[in-house]
Amino acid sequence: MTALAAGIRYMITLYTWATPNGRKVSIMLEECGLAYAVKTVDITASEQFLADFVAINPNAKIPAIVDDEKQCTVFESGAILIYLAERCGRFLATIGSERYAALQWLMLQMSAIGPILGQVHHFHRFAPERVPYAIARFDKEAERLYGVLDRRLAETEYLAGAYSIADIACFPWIARHEWQEIDLNNYTNVKRWFETVGQRPAVQRGMLVPA
Amino acid sequence: MTALAAGIRYMITLYTWATPNGRKVSIMLEECGLAYAVKTVDITASEQFLADFVAINPNAKIPAIVDDEKQCTVFESGAILIYLAERCGRFLATIGSERYAALQWLMLQMSAIGPILGQVHHFHRFAPERVPYAIARFDKEAERLYGVLDRRLAETEYLAGAYSIADIACFPWIARHEWQEIDLNNYTNVKRWFETVGQRPAVQRGMLVPA
Repeated sequence: MTALAAGIRYMITLYTWATPNGRKVSIMLEECGLAYAVKTVDITASEQFLADFVAINPNAKIPAIVDDEKQCTVFESGAILIYLAERCGRFLATIGSERYAALQWLMLQMSAIGPILGQVHHFHRFAPERVPYAIARFDKEAERLYGVLDRRLAETEYLAGAYSIADIACFPWIARHEWQEIDLNNYTNVKRWFETVGQRPAVQRGMLVPA
Repeated sequence: MTALAAGIRYMITLYTWATPNGRKVSIMLEECGLAYAVKTVDITASEQFLADFVAINPNAKIPAIVDDEKQCTVFESGAILIYLAERCGRFLATIGSERYAALQWLMLQMSAIGPILGQVHHFHRFAPERVPYAIARFDKEAERLYGVLDRRLAETEYLAGAYSIADIACFPWIARHEWQEIDLNNYTNVKRWFETVGQRPAVQRGMLVPA
């Protein structure tokens, strides 16, 4: 049952849209079992530039959360994942090498997998002209990154050993592998991981937000 | 005096090169006063792909650190900054909204300022052909991001209020504003911040690593 269906008072408001970065956070909220309200920010209608939202995230990007109980606003999906992990004590070890394993793979998602696959989406699907140099550049880097993940996932079940915010951050980007024209059969360890993570009920619920 | 000059036993080894991402970490090590040895990874000679380094960072990118005392290896500059901040108890609040302010601005650097300015560097300086669409795309986003920083720094002295790992992460990227053909006079708050941060002795030392 989603928090929304449970009819609980919402302490956390999630500002989001149907994108990989938004879904990282809805998955995490579902995994943590936190009660949250969803406010859609329709980026196809440029709602992220409205003053009320820019007051929450001056960078004018979803997702962002407002946690009324803790009197805390957080933007940037990676920061929100750390915030929620530390709030709930889940999906991120509090000390030791496991903690930094999760943070380094989270950062790889934030610095490379998201930004590069985002450019792949743009140049394959949204650019008003065909730009062969950019398509080749970002496709090549995307394949390289899938290879990095695949070799890692040949050694460990999840990116940081145990299931963590690093997996939650990567999953919604890998879920768009068809947009990226990536054949998961070429990355069998990524495919196995993708199927395993995708079977988690919280992941399935989170991927449907916003409804 | 740098740790190197002090002749202390090095518990931390920094694998780096003369890039913004490398210098984030050398600045942080200097700020924390940690003894560290520098191992250069010459990316102009593709040394990041050598097996010994890929064993440390499977993503084959500098920087990475090996902390012998803590038996911990960390890659991705943003994860290393959090690791060192938590190791030393400095430049990142341990709880509360100040902590997540620093983490969200750090993540903005990791997800946007680094990746976008990196593309600006590529398309202005390194691409073997001129790609007008990509130049315009990344220039526009770079100007937007400088604007986001400028409006933030109109309100606060440093990105997260107090000086933090968010400033340390951004500084070496802003230090390349001439590569980006950005006129800091158009961003007076960024300029003030850049000059203030640049006066810190640890920042000055860190920017000279590797020698």
